[in-house]
Amino acid sequence: MTHARLEKLAASLRTSDLDAVILNPGPTLTYLTGLHFHLMERPVVLFVAPGQDPVLVLPELELPKLDHLTYKLQAVAFGETPSEWGNAFRKAAQMLGLDGKRIGVEPRQLRLLEFGYVMAGAPKAEFPDASLVLSALRLKKDQAEVESMRRAVHIAQNALEAVIPLIKIGMTERELASELVVQLLKNGSDPELPFAPIVASGPNSAVGHAFPIDRKLQAGDMLVVDWGAAYDGYISDLTRTFAVGEADTEFQKIHKIVQEANAAGRAAGRPGIPCAAVDKAARGVIEQSGYGKYFTHRTGHGIGMEGHEEPYMRGDNLQVLEPGMAYTVEPGIYLTGRNGVRIEDDVVVTASGTDCLSDMPRQMRVVG
Amino acid sequence: MTHARLEKLAASLRTSDLDAVILNPGPTLTYLTGLHFHLMERPVVLFVAPGQDPVLVLPELELPKLDHLTYKLQAVAFGETPSEWGNAFRKAAQMLGLDGKRIGVEPRQLRLLEFGYVMAGAPKAEFPDASLVLSALRLKKDQAEVESMRRAVHIAQNALEAVIPLIKIGMTERELASELVVQLLKNGSDPELPFAPIVASGPNSAVGHAFPIDRKLQAGDMLVVDWGAAYDGYISDLTRTFAVGEADTEFQKIHKIVQEANAAGRAAGRPGIPCAAVDKAARGVIEQSGYGKYFTHRTGHGIGMEGHEEPYMRGDNLQVLEPGMAYTVEPGIYLTGRNGVRIEDDVVVTASGTDCLSDMPRQMRVVG
Repeated sequence: MTHARLEKLAASLRTSDLDAVILNPGPTLTYLTGLHFHLMERPVVLFVAPGQDPVLVLPELELPKLDHLTYKLQAVAFGETPSEWGNAFRKAAQMLGLDGKRIGVEPRQLRLLEFGYVMAGAPKAEFPDASLVLSALRLKKDQAEVESMRRAVHIAQNALEAVIPLIKIGMTERELASELVVQLLKNGSDPELPFAPIVASGPNSAVGHAFPIDRKLQAGDMLVVDWGAAYDGYISDLTRTFAVGEADTEFQKIHKIVQEANAAGRAAGRPGIPCAAVDKAARGVIEQSGYGKYFTHRTGHGIGMEGHEEPYMRGDNLQVLEPGMAYTVEPGIYLTGRNGVRIEDDVVVTASGTDCLSDMPRQMRVVG
Repeated sequence: MTHARLEKLAASLRTSDLDAVILNPGPTLTYLTGLHFHLMERPVVLFVAPGQDPVLVLPELELPKLDHLTYKLQAVAFGETPSEWGNAFRKAAQMLGLDGKRIGVEPRQLRLLEFGYVMAGAPKAEFPDASLVLSALRLKKDQAEVESMRRAVHIAQNALEAVIPLIKIGMTERELASELVVQLLKNGSDPELPFAPIVASGPNSAVGHAFPIDRKLQAGDMLVVDWGAAYDGYISDLTRTFAVGEADTEFQKIHKIVQEANAAGRAAGRPGIPCAAVDKAARGVIEQSGYGKYFTHRTGHGIGMEGHEEPYMRGDNLQVLEPGMAYTVEPGIYLTGRNGVRIEDDVVVTASGTDCLSDMPRQMRVVG
């Protein structure tokens, strides 16, 4: 094993109570190996145990992906007959001597599919939660990672700026979402977007994780656009809220409150403070305004190769910020059945504060 | 419970050895409920037990999605503090009296995250594999589902036809993939594409599940484009292979063989025969040509709300075709380090044979 990131994992495992970890297709596997696999019905699993070359169980048809690796990886390939797949997993566990050992898992990513094969291949093993060891690997971004995220932010901003002049009353949320995706790609996003943009208007804008529907934009709507791009596997995740046609008086006020909360949240971050302090800074502004109970979610989440990763900006999270950690600041106020407002930016913790990667205007703009 | 699909599941459960099933966000949950959730760190789980209204455990901020349901669903919502989420799962299991019962799971979809919460909430329950019961629900498509798939096929075909004139020597795979995604959306695909298009040239075309890279198209390359659209949640999945600039003699021959194999595979399907017969028909053509060992994957997979679902066209699969089943026919020949060829169509089993949803020309076209 010579790849620096795999070495880093091996070093973490040596100081943990784990003998190994298993990973299925997803960001952690890609981070560690540089390899991409689709998550599908054929179980792909990477086994990493310190002091041994990692073992990758995969379908034969994926073997060419290993042709140009610059580090040592042992492949155990299986054919198209599912009844034979169990053998491959047994073999992998045996190669690394893992039966009876403590094999860490990533519960947010690992499915019962892969877990079942590994359990059958190492029936006496234990499978503790390895989330802390694994998320620590990706928690602090290096300069190259930050620059990829910055690029993903700029691609996203340019894409939305290109779409704004096209927004018209009567256009549907879905039409607008499609136009935004087109612009994300034209502006240089990776073809695999981090998530389908949320374009939500009127009552739909008061839904936290809305999907675009065929609703037509109407004068007086608030319009929440929550969108992002990917660059070299790193993502951006931003939100801006617009007024369609005209701005309702109460929502003008609400928009200003959310903008202040967003600014307070962005300003709060620095090394040494807990994530809870970021949440408190943003939430405090909204609570003071009297809309506290309408800010129904945490202030932000970590960001990097995934839209939601450590660290989480939650009131109960005492995890301490360190340079290189990256997260969103995204306060919102949602009046169910009426409208919602959210403003989201992406920041990276520096030696003394934070670097805000996004700079698109945050004040309420009237569109349509 | 009044929703027809939930009733159908309840009826299946009554004749099975399962007392209930649990589902996390994904196509089966959407099929049954019409609800969409992102798969993320907050665990969303639907509990279905016959004779009782289903229970959905979900974050409070997702509650507005339940506002306009036309059937009965009991919601158990949790806030943003993870230490309290366990309570919601315990409550859901208690509401349905599930502790000590047999709760079926979907291993291809369920993560250890959700599974851990449900296990803790019903510590004496057993969790058998419910894949057969669940995949049977979605296996035979009704007329409306077929028409959505047909629309997804036409959107995909129109998109690729729009891109073909733009293909030039020197263009990268990634540029071409981006252009194709733009056209998929412009032609009416749902914003959430079923998968990122595979655009693979030269040696990359010999990799079964290649990701587009920055490789520039060169004269003499084979160019595999494996792409699809989504319409109303139903997808298409097609492949065509082009010659860039000029057609290498051996790959002209290989392309013809694959085209014949594709035709044989499409012609083979009809009610009453096993899936294995479809695989055999396509594979037989390639084996007779002497390239058998270079056709490294099964002939096809089921298609509907997912790219890969039941039934699988594999040599060892004795599952019998019935009207309404839909699947891909996608033979290929891959010469590692050189080029690959694959031709993929989507078919639906009818009363007497199959209806091929795709009709884009299959013969080798020279591009660039």
